[in-house]
Amino acid sequence: MTELNAAACEGTTLETAPTRYVEGGGIRFAYRRLGPSNGTPLVLLQHFSGNIDAWDPAVVNALAADRTVIVFDNAGVGRSTGQTPDNVAAMADDAVTFINLLGLSEVDLLGFSLGGFLAQLIAARHGRLVRKVILVGTAPQGGEEHLMAVLQEAFADKQAPDVRLPLFFTPSSVSQAAGQAFLKRAKARTEDRDTDSGSDVTNPQAKALITWCATPDPEHATLRAITQPALVVSGSNDTMLPAENAYAMFKVLSDAQLVLYPDSGHGALFQHHALFVSHVRTFLDA
Amino acid sequence: MTELNAAACEGTTLETAPTRYVEGGGIRFAYRRLGPSNGTPLVLLQHFSGNIDAWDPAVVNALAADRTVIVFDNAGVGRSTGQTPDNVAAMADDAVTFINLLGLSEVDLLGFSLGGFLAQLIAARHGRLVRKVILVGTAPQGGEEHLMAVLQEAFADKQAPDVRLPLFFTPSSVSQAAGQAFLKRAKARTEDRDTDSGSDVTNPQAKALITWCATPDPEHATLRAITQPALVVSGSNDTMLPAENAYAMFKVLSDAQLVLYPDSGHGALFQHHALFVSHVRTFLDA
Repeated sequence: MTELNAAACEGTTLETAPTRYVEGGGIRFAYRRLGPSNGTPLVLLQHFSGNIDAWDPAVVNALAADRTVIVFDNAGVGRSTGQTPDNVAAMADDAVTFINLLGLSEVDLLGFSLGGFLAQLIAARHGRLVRKVILVGTAPQGGEEHLMAVLQEAFADKQAPDVRLPLFFTPSSVSQAAGQAFLKRAKARTEDRDTDSGSDVTNPQAKALITWCATPDPEHATLRAITQPALVVSGSNDTMLPAENAYAMFKVLSDAQLVLYPDSGHGALFQHHALFVSHVRTFLDA
Repeated sequence: MTELNAAACEGTTLETAPTRYVEGGGIRFAYRRLGPSNGTPLVLLQHFSGNIDAWDPAVVNALAADRTVIVFDNAGVGRSTGQTPDNVAAMADDAVTFINLLGLSEVDLLGFSLGGFLAQLIAARHGRLVRKVILVGTAPQGGEEHLMAVLQEAFADKQAPDVRLPLFFTPSSVSQAAGQAFLKRAKARTEDRDTDSGSDVTNPQAKALITWCATPDPEHATLRAITQPALVVSGSNDTMLPAENAYAMFKVLSDAQLVLYPDSGHGALFQHHALFVSHVRTFLDA
């Protein structure tokens, strides 16, 4: 299937859109397509362990108000078949395979966390395919990370009803309330929900994450190869991939805007969803 | 005069609005008032040596599309009487006197460079008067500055038709072209232009600037006293007050957004005027 079937997608939401499939390269990719077929489609690249339903409907639906937004499970994740690779380069290749299967010749990318690693590589290596790139809560190759320490602490906190509350939000009451609201939105879809990730996803993804951050890139070869306009976004208190990464990427990228949000963690884009959507739209529409 | 005379201001522009005067505390303040009388008025605080006509009409007029914008000459500057103080605290007091004379009980502040120093002090000391504060191309007390070195180099460059081209814009052709466009906009008003600053303005202002940056504030007392929402903005390559200042302020302020722009200097708000206006409106309207 290469046809986008735009008319059927307009007016649907992340919570109500049917999950579709496209097959090629030995992988059957699960995806949802939202919004009108205006301009350049925006493809979202998901965080560690996340599937299609881990995106925030408040972000996805607002972005889809005036553009095509495509959310998908990369190889091995959720309802997509194939094997989850243990390195970022192979994941980026899989994402490009998916984009090609949809017949898209030019896209904007929004990569969150691990998805931001993929977005950097794809933008650097596929200059014609990627028009603009949005890097959220992410890090450059060789960047600073505290993933294992923070993950261990979060999973040890048996009181948290969802590990994303301590991982994505700060301890402040405002941030935790925003976290509760996010979880409610993300759990609103009850029928045809995406499949949760098991260790066959999280083990190779964890290896890819750690390897990316542990592999120095002193010349910033990947960032320097990104010539597209970039929007770099982070929360003030991201405990896993600190905001210093965003500032460092901004300084190396040739055409980047940096936006940092107050009292927010790794999930700054979900906590400040209206602000984030406004900034993304301003960036994409400029 | 305490009446704002709103109806007469709607539809006028920075280039066409009459210069008005309000007197009190021994000072006659020159100002222009633009835009409809919706919501909280936005008061602009100007940079070193700048008068009312040194603002960018593209920024001021766009901001005035849906709110009251007030530009003025502080004591001793342009067509305002009185003496320009040699310290930021006295300048901030003068600005508060002006705001009080207009009868405004709550304002938003946009402070650029030296004006950002005043905005910090006013926001910290007048919690009820200031609703939100925008800090552009500025520094905290004790912040990093290269003012004298950069100014000397810029004034030594006899080839530049206007010192703001090397001071406010980067050497890139894109930034210099944006600088030329800014100068054209800023010089569009030919009748009733504001009076340029002489050494009776620039000498005390220079002392105030240097003293502010040379006076350490290791506890960040001023920034920590600012409880209002803040938007901190800088250009990537500000040679006089580097973007590190903006990042440092963001980290200390309790409720700040940080926005940094690519390939831009001290005049980032003029170079990226449409983007800047969009970010300011999003911030003020949230």
